[in-house]
Amino acid sequence: MQTNINCDMGESFGIYKMGNDEAIMPYITEANIACGFHGSDPNHIRRTVELCARHGVKVGAHFSLPDLPGFGRREMKIDREEMANIILYQIGALKGFLDAAGIQLCHMKPHGALYGMAAREEHIAHAICDACHAYAVPVFGLSGTLHEEIYTARGLEFVAEFFADLDYDQNGKLLITREHPVLDPQSVGQKALRAVTEGKVTSVTGEDVPVTAKTICIHSDTPNVVDIAKAVRSALEDYIEAA
Amino acid sequence: MQTNINCDMGESFGIYKMGNDEAIMPYITEANIACGFHGSDPNHIRRTVELCARHGVKVGAHFSLPDLPGFGRREMKIDREEMANIILYQIGALKGFLDAAGIQLCHMKPHGALYGMAAREEHIAHAICDACHAYAVPVFGLSGTLHEEIYTARGLEFVAEFFADLDYDQNGKLLITREHPVLDPQSVGQKALRAVTEGKVTSVTGEDVPVTAKTICIHSDTPNVVDIAKAVRSALEDYIEAA
Amino acid sequence: MQTNINCDMGESFGIYKMGNDEAIMPYITEANIACGFHGSDPNHIRRTVELCARHGVKVGAHFSLPDLPGFGRREMKIDREEMANIILYQIGALKGFLDAAGIQLCHMKPHGALYGMAAREEHIAHAICDACHAYAVPVFGLSGTLHEEIYTARGLEFVAEFFADLDYDQNGKLLITREHPVLDPQSVGQKALRAVTEGKVTSVTGEDVPVTAKTICIHSDTPNVVDIAKAVRSALEDYIEAA
Amino acid sequence: MQTNINCDMGESFGIYKMGNDEAIMPYITEANIACGFHGSDPNHIRRTVELCARHGVKVGAHFSLPDLPGFGRREMKIDREEMANIILYQIGALKGFLDAAGIQLCHMKPHGALYGMAAREEHIAHAICDACHAYAVPVFGLSGTLHEEIYTARGLEFVAEFFADLDYDQNGKLLITREHPVLDPQSVGQKALRAVTEGKVTSVTGEDVPVTAKTICIHSDTPNVVDIAKAVRSALEDYIEAA
Repeated sequence: MQTNINCDMGESFGIYKMGNDEAIMPYITEANIACGFHGSDPNHIRRTVELCARHGVKVGAHFSLPDLPGFGRREMKIDREEMANIILYQIGALKGFLDAAGIQLCHMKPHGALYGMAAREEHIAHAICDACHAYAVPVFGLSGTLHEEIYTARGLEFVAEFFADLDYDQNGKLLITREHPVLDPQSVGQKALRAVTEGKVTSVTGEDVPVTAKTICIHSDTPNVVDIAKAVRSALEDYIEAA
Repeated sequence: MQTNINCDMGESFGIYKMGNDEAIMPYITEANIACGFHGSDPNHIRRTVELCARHGVKVGAHFSLPDLPGFGRREMKIDREEMANIILYQIGALKGFLDAAGIQLCHMKPHGALYGMAAREEHIAHAICDACHAYAVPVFGLSGTLHEEIYTARGLEFVAEFFADLDYDQNGKLLITREHPVLDPQSVGQKALRAVTEGKVTSVTGEDVPVTAKTICIHSDTPNVVDIAKAVRSALEDYIEAA
Repeated sequence: MQTNINCDMGESFGIYKMGNDEAIMPYITEANIACGFHGSDPNHIRRTVELCARHGVKVGAHFSLPDLPGFGRREMKIDREEMANIILYQIGALKGFLDAAGIQLCHMKPHGALYGMAAREEHIAHAICDACHAYAVPVFGLSGTLHEEIYTARGLEFVAEFFADLDYDQNGKLLITREHPVLDPQSVGQKALRAVTEGKVTSVTGEDVPVTAKTICIHSDTPNVVDIAKAVRSALEDYIEAA
Repeated sequence: MQTNINCDMGESFGIYKMGNDEAIMPYITEANIACGFHGSDPNHIRRTVELCARHGVKVGAHFSLPDLPGFGRREMKIDREEMANIILYQIGALKGFLDAAGIQLCHMKPHGALYGMAAREEHIAHAICDACHAYAVPVFGLSGTLHEEIYTARGLEFVAEFFADLDYDQNGKLLITREHPVLDPQSVGQKALRAVTEGKVTSVTGEDVPVTAKTICIHSDTPNVVDIAKAVRSALEDYIEAA
């Protein structure tokens, strides 16, 4: 059984703070670290990598469109080769800090608008694959998308994420929202557990729909994210202990 | 005997072209590739790395202050830790492309204002050393400076550069100029050869002064740089063959 | 009769040079000055404004998507309000230099990907109009597009451009190309003259199609742009003198 | 008597929030609006200008070194002409939004490292003056500095600021700190009032030293800045009413 919990980390920029990374770290197993193209900068990357090292949290590259003013949320038309180069630059930049800290790069994950583009646009899914190929680590993404199809077809590992803090429709489609409301931590924990153990989620219209949950994604900008992370972690651990 | 010739490469940015990298490549042995902080971008880094691979030219990271509008030529006050992080980010970014191409990172070299700051400011020399430590490759710099002293004291290899296309004063101090005039290629070739074989250069005031020349630096923005590169290469190779 | 000839100017960035502004200036009447979001910077804006002042060339704001690495050629998804703010920022920045030089802002023109987006996307056409409203100067654009329709409907002056150095299809649609080949200056001059005097152009398939030509746009990156500018200017002036 | 209170405003960037502008606005009379080179962006400039318009707060341009990652706090070596151009670009950009809102530009103020450089470096003081000359509005700065001397000598109005939330030494020199502690609002209010009415402040070593206070500057990043702004405003207004 998977007990992986991933969360976006290191999104502060200069004196601008974002998220409460220190408080969340104890509850997650995988950190998606911003690489400086939507958030973060060399100082924050260094601190976040060190924070991961202290907490034994695995590090992934959270690469983005080149869009610092828009936090990587504005779609852009970029061709495959350029997109691959932009991603490779970011992965390398993060890996510099991992090399210096003596720790491994464990996964990849596209950020923001790029995440959705990877799911829908063939040349973007290929570009991510082109860039990640040299590193032989899995990429996180949405199950049932072009992203999964292309990545898998090219022989690389694709890890399907379940979003415990978002809703799904009756077709199992994730309903992405920009603002994340306060959620009941226990419910989110149970929702995550059910996705992992039964492969099911209750859609917004009340039906059970099948989902794949190799890792649980928690959004660091949900207001009570620390409680949510804690509850998801507990739910998964309690289940394992009981087994 | 050293026959190394290094040159700054890959300084184009987007549709803005700089230098004639393709024409210079056949004559150099080491390329200092811009990492995107004073020039270059992910596309140009990729192309320059591939160009080096085709020509068998060794690749070094040519990192800079974060100053794209000023081409890295405007000094900035940055503390040691931040400077080290900014450098590490750039080395890593370049190394991403080397990893993808399956070639090695062979050296480091600070660019522009950072080159001079490394020679004069202790915290900057240390910052470069901090950033480069994980990679165990030599750094290129000015002999007889704080940069050499600190780098060597910390157990890392320092490679003294000789600038065949610049003048030296009677104390052996390099006279750095921003604009590089057209030079007679044969004279530059002989100057380089003498620096390598005799460890001497004629200063602007006519005296012979001692210099160290482990690698010959040629500026890609000297108007007749291709002829100069060719002449320096010939001078060094002819000497070796004759020996 | 219109004898206006406009050209993109001031697209150099830092030490990166683009175009031969000084040589083109004598032949044009209107300069579209880059505002720093796709090219240019404060130094180049200053110099270009002064160059216009010396040549008596009218100045327009050539605003862009925020995309310096892509030279404003990569489409981005930006909502109306943000787009208007991004444009207003650029117009204001240019106008600072006009205020300092004591000269007037005379027109507006979207650059690169934004030019095409303005022609096709309603919210972008409105955003440009929102931003330009305070200045009460005409905007240059493609005739027969949403851009013209919206701008005109909102009571602002729209000036239809004719592209003397590009081809049109049988429906009068402009065939935009990224690379501009060397063209015969005399032919381009006659083509411009005919568009102005007869309102017609010969399409790539050989038919005469109607066009509106209130100002003739010449691309500064056509290799023989100076000869072309000269020929267009002569053709228009000869005609007027003869009349 | 002066009752002016100025505060830095509009320093948020993209989704990164800084300061509590809405809560502070009712108590200040002059807003120094960031122009996008150390903080802010076109969206935040628009919102801040509109906020000032609603509160009847006068707007000044708070221009900076080009240093978004460092929040304008890292000194850079920039020559006079380039510095003037960089400043003019920022003033113009802000003024675009003022033009659109139909309100006036009322003052200028250098931000961060540039503020200190203006006080010490002749070419920087001149550059600010060069850039501001066209606008004929006063500049805010430190009394008794090169900045005041040069600006005044060139016939422009210089407004001396008193920092109610910082300490002064026995020579009347301002002791600038990066972090601002929680302060007792009443004491700060009385300190401001005394500076305005008596032209005196008690130094850290206990002596009364003369100060000039044409406007009171309050730092928006002092933790209890709203209470401080309120207390300073009350102290000044109570005094005027009593008079």
